[in-house]
Amino acid sequence: MASEPLLNQLIESLRCLPGVGPKTAQRMALHLLERNREGGLQLASVLVDALEKIGRCKRCRDLTESEICGICSNAGRDQSLLCVVESPVDVLAIEQATAYKGHYFVLLGRLSPLDGIGPAELGLDQLAERLEKDTPVEMIIATNPTVEGEATSYYLQRMAKKHHIRVTRIAHGVPLGGELEYTDQSTLAHAFGSRLPIN
Amino acid sequence: MASEPLLNQLIESLRCLPGVGPKTAQRMALHLLERNREGGLQLASVLVDALEKIGRCKRCRDLTESEICGICSNAGRDQSLLCVVESPVDVLAIEQATAYKGHYFVLLGRLSPLDGIGPAELGLDQLAERLEKDTPVEMIIATNPTVEGEATSYYLQRMAKKHHIRVTRIAHGVPLGGELEYTDQSTLAHAFGSRLPIN
Repeated sequence: MASEPLLNQLIESLRCLPGVGPKTAQRMALHLLERNREGGLQLASVLVDALEKIGRCKRCRDLTESEICGICSNAGRDQSLLCVVESPVDVLAIEQATAYKGHYFVLLGRLSPLDGIGPAELGLDQLAERLEKDTPVEMIIATNPTVEGEATSYYLQRMAKKHHIRVTRIAHGVPLGGELEYTDQSTLAHAFGSRLPIN
Repeated sequence: MASEPLLNQLIESLRCLPGVGPKTAQRMALHLLERNREGGLQLASVLVDALEKIGRCKRCRDLTESEICGICSNAGRDQSLLCVVESPVDVLAIEQATAYKGHYFVLLGRLSPLDGIGPAELGLDQLAERLEKDTPVEMIIATNPTVEGEATSYYLQRMAKKHHIRVTRIAHGVPLGGELEYTDQSTLAHAFGSRLPIN
């Protein structure tokens, strides 16, 4: 079997999936061949379909198979709220965890001048236009709390202020169920500094 | 994005891979869409190709895209050695780890009467025919050291004896790099009982 070119090719191709090394790819290939050929064929056809049809939403830059994504075209959502995130995964995470019913803007990255990623690459001109035209009441910044994410957040804050839009940033601190003892120092320091009054 | 049917379908389809839950499937789908569309399309085409063309070797029941697999048709391999394994993964593992240059017979399972798996399902009549016709010198049993694997091994031993073929079983004991302290009791007991003389 070690000399079966097609099998080796399948194992090699499966490694394009994130987090899949040689052993996992081998297990996946054999599983599909031995136990789930139908599922494998189905996966192949959906893959082609999805990769060919899914593009970017013209309004929020999120992934979609239509011109305008389901969230942007949903009249039931609140136009006055605009949440800015780094990537489509973040939209999914927020949609799954929260009851947020506003709109999104997906940067597809974060400011990182050394990598050649500036405001233009993040579609910030498009965002500025939107702030100008739609004038949302609140802009919620949900970039990741990394150095680049913070720099991006700072840039976004200035943009919003220029357009006289209220800006908020999602809270960072000790995660629920977490223990102070095991919380990293910078998170704990941040949580301490951002303490809120109790009503 | 949560309301994109094609994306949801892709995430759902990826779950046919072993060990892939909802979160991993989501990460894989977004990774392919955002960073590796070419790899994804390549994967889809290889999947279709492999699932349609890879079948069973007529001689050893291993996975192959030809009538007879690469190992069985390789004239350079030793016909007098026959290693019996449970599944194609075992062939791959042995090929990768050892210098074994003999032939294989893949049972595609193990004796398990309660699940309706008897000698016929494991192709043991085909194996008996092969023992009769090719009369290998040695049959190496490499079934897994589980209850069913042991039962299968015992059955194979009797078959080999009937055909007057030397039988061996791969060694079981403390794994290399393992420590006695952390070796489970049955393995240690087996290793103790199967101790070998030192020359």
